[in-house]
Amino acid sequence: MLNETHAPDLTSWVPSANRPDCDFPLQNLPHGVFRRRGTREAFRGGVAIGDQVLDMAMAHATGIFEGEAARAAHHAGAPALNDLMALGTTSWRALRLALSRALREDGGDAKALRPCLVPQTDVEHTVPSRIGDYTDFYTSIDHARNVMRIVRPDEPISANFQWMPIAYHGRASSIGVSGQSYRRPMGQAMPPGATAPVHGPCARLDYELELGIFVGPGNRQGEPVALADAERHLFGVCLLNDWSARDIQFWELVPLGPFLGKNFCTTISPWIVTMEALAPFRHAWNRAADEPQPLAYLESADNRAQGAIDIRLEAWLDTGKSRAGHAGPTRLSHTSFRHQYWTPAQMLTHHTMGGCNLQSGDLLGSGTISGPGPGEAGAMIELTLAGRKPLVLANGEERGFLQDGDAVTLRGWCEAPGRARIGFGECRGTVLPALAR
Amino acid sequence: MLNETHAPDLTSWVPSANRPDCDFPLQNLPHGVFRRRGTREAFRGGVAIGDQVLDMAMAHATGIFEGEAARAAHHAGAPALNDLMALGTTSWRALRLALSRALREDGGDAKALRPCLVPQTDVEHTVPSRIGDYTDFYTSIDHARNVMRIVRPDEPISANFQWMPIAYHGRASSIGVSGQSYRRPMGQAMPPGATAPVHGPCARLDYELELGIFVGPGNRQGEPVALADAERHLFGVCLLNDWSARDIQFWELVPLGPFLGKNFCTTISPWIVTMEALAPFRHAWNRAADEPQPLAYLESADNRAQGAIDIRLEAWLDTGKSRAGHAGPTRLSHTSFRHQYWTPAQMLTHHTMGGCNLQSGDLLGSGTISGPGPGEAGAMIELTLAGRKPLVLANGEERGFLQDGDAVTLRGWCEAPGRARIGFGECRGTVLPALAR
Repeated sequence: MLNETHAPDLTSWVPSANRPDCDFPLQNLPHGVFRRRGTREAFRGGVAIGDQVLDMAMAHATGIFEGEAARAAHHAGAPALNDLMALGTTSWRALRLALSRALREDGGDAKALRPCLVPQTDVEHTVPSRIGDYTDFYTSIDHARNVMRIVRPDEPISANFQWMPIAYHGRASSIGVSGQSYRRPMGQAMPPGATAPVHGPCARLDYELELGIFVGPGNRQGEPVALADAERHLFGVCLLNDWSARDIQFWELVPLGPFLGKNFCTTISPWIVTMEALAPFRHAWNRAADEPQPLAYLESADNRAQGAIDIRLEAWLDTGKSRAGHAGPTRLSHTSFRHQYWTPAQMLTHHTMGGCNLQSGDLLGSGTISGPGPGEAGAMIELTLAGRKPLVLANGEERGFLQDGDAVTLRGWCEAPGRARIGFGECRGTVLPALAR
Repeated sequence: MLNETHAPDLTSWVPSANRPDCDFPLQNLPHGVFRRRGTREAFRGGVAIGDQVLDMAMAHATGIFEGEAARAAHHAGAPALNDLMALGTTSWRALRLALSRALREDGGDAKALRPCLVPQTDVEHTVPSRIGDYTDFYTSIDHARNVMRIVRPDEPISANFQWMPIAYHGRASSIGVSGQSYRRPMGQAMPPGATAPVHGPCARLDYELELGIFVGPGNRQGEPVALADAERHLFGVCLLNDWSARDIQFWELVPLGPFLGKNFCTTISPWIVTMEALAPFRHAWNRAADEPQPLAYLESADNRAQGAIDIRLEAWLDTGKSRAGHAGPTRLSHTSFRHQYWTPAQMLTHHTMGGCNLQSGDLLGSGTISGPGPGEAGAMIELTLAGRKPLVLANGEERGFLQDGDAVTLRGWCEAPGRARIGFGECRGTVLPALAR
């Protein structure tokens, strides 16, 4: 449902928002939580416009917002965005329209809002909601196939994959925001051919290119969300790196799934691009006739018509050496979320099917996003065949898995003819050496 | 480390606390959060004594507590006990000692505290902390063996079981407190021999007898807790029923572990028995010489000397018919936590080994507690061999799995010669019919 906020010719009185390669034009308006870097200021909500952050607490205080938009603007300035997420589509749309009009070059309200701008280079971010629960899905069939080819080449992917969006509960406490560094995890692993596990620093540290989806209004325990209603429970999308310790993960995985292999750190991008901003990039979702068709609760006309989203994604690696030299970072992979086997709406509906209650501000990870082609795999384990075929970086270094000092940067954006480019900014994290033993 | 608060001959001016079968004598003093039933009063912290609740917000306001005990009493009266849990052992001990002295028959402070008592029959409880993350372990080797015998009789338990306390992340939002009812979950299952899954109400609904362990002071991300320090991070223990939808669980389980099979509901008892109250019931923890010995990070002298806890546990079933008739509830199982293969301290240390940060108020489930003998299994799937040998209840009814209207009640207590009995109260939940499709 497109409206005037999506018009591609809109420009802003914030000049940087009008550059063609800008991630945050007037048609985007993603939400985040920030403060001036290096200060002890309170964190508060902001909206990205060009290379600036609009301080929403201050913007709300100017009094330029009215009615539903004012109510939403109040919550958009809070230190955590859970209450904004709880409001629902009507409020979000009212705020988006008011912001779009106030930030427009033609007829906007530069006088009131200019004092509320802070340059993005001057701010630091925090996780934008109190994440009650974090769930990580597993919804890329190309990822599933790539990993099975490496781990158990004789077996097909698990029989349930094509019947449901598989997921597991992840760790909320260790989710951090882009820019973070974390220590290489220690843990148990069973080396090939060994009879007893070893304990030491992870030897197979990996990234996973994912998207994170923030839950809008929740559902009550015992009351599943029908697929036809699921989109109303989705607030927006960020980039997510599900750092993975493969040696720890594969030793602990059976029978209860990932635990220490994943819970040491998860990094998300600071900006949440709203479902509203993504509306021009929705696509049909299809299931080939020779594949299992979804059970009734995972089937709806809207989901078929526009359940998918074409979000372009890239992962980049830079190393201690590459930062010191001239070769620059290396692009590891590039793909689109459009290929995903299940849609965000199907993930949300399946999650609630047994009665599980989702709460506003909860986070759903998409699972690794790998596309069908070469160079489209979203994790090193796939790209390097579990380290057997190391990647050669732009400066000649080789990598089977991540080394200390390596930094992974995820990027994402939407583009389409006749549409403004909608960017996600970046999601960057750096590996520090393990604690001395 | 026992002190005067553990003396078995102490009696209270609250007469019900002095009955020999009382769960909550002066030597216990468990924490919970409550309000008068059916009111809109604010929830606040309380301490159980006999058949009464001591309103800790009111008790703190009397001014009878001093110094560290006053600080702890303040947090013990809050609507969530996270800040009390964050204080640590010194504060907890100061409060316990002050409470023990004030509630004593001989030299106590009945005049100040009597107005702060509310009968337990008049209160309702809520979950006692804001549970940031909930982790469920899998640490009973008898449970693991029982289930494998049923599910894959030709295979041994997974090779990692004897090397680490296996765990997965559970769902925090759907944890409720004793007395709750929940709808039988809907979900997908793959019937034996079928080629496509079916979607409908769970046909194999089960309980799991567990203990819940509340985390005291947390640890920073990237900083593991050494086993020698782990006990200082444990606040106390409650009963926990990890309701499980076996048909949904076994279809979704591979490769990423339990999800909808578990996340529809988890029930805990309202009272948290502190580690301090459990001190007289600690026991040696042993690993037979022919079994794998723990890796160094899971080994400590203290854990060997007294890592285990002898908590007696029972599960009871009553049905719609049994409640109407005279036969009464049926005891399904009885065992002790003493048999557990890994200790709470080992669970906590393993959890943090990769750098995962625990937060005060987080909840760790022990995993199903099954003992080595007949009748000691902590779930119906074990007791009935997955429904093949239904249990015969006291009124002649049979059960392979739980039916609508069934209620499961868990009980726990510690007893030892020359020691006051320390009880856990009960953890009860009732199955409602599934939503109409």
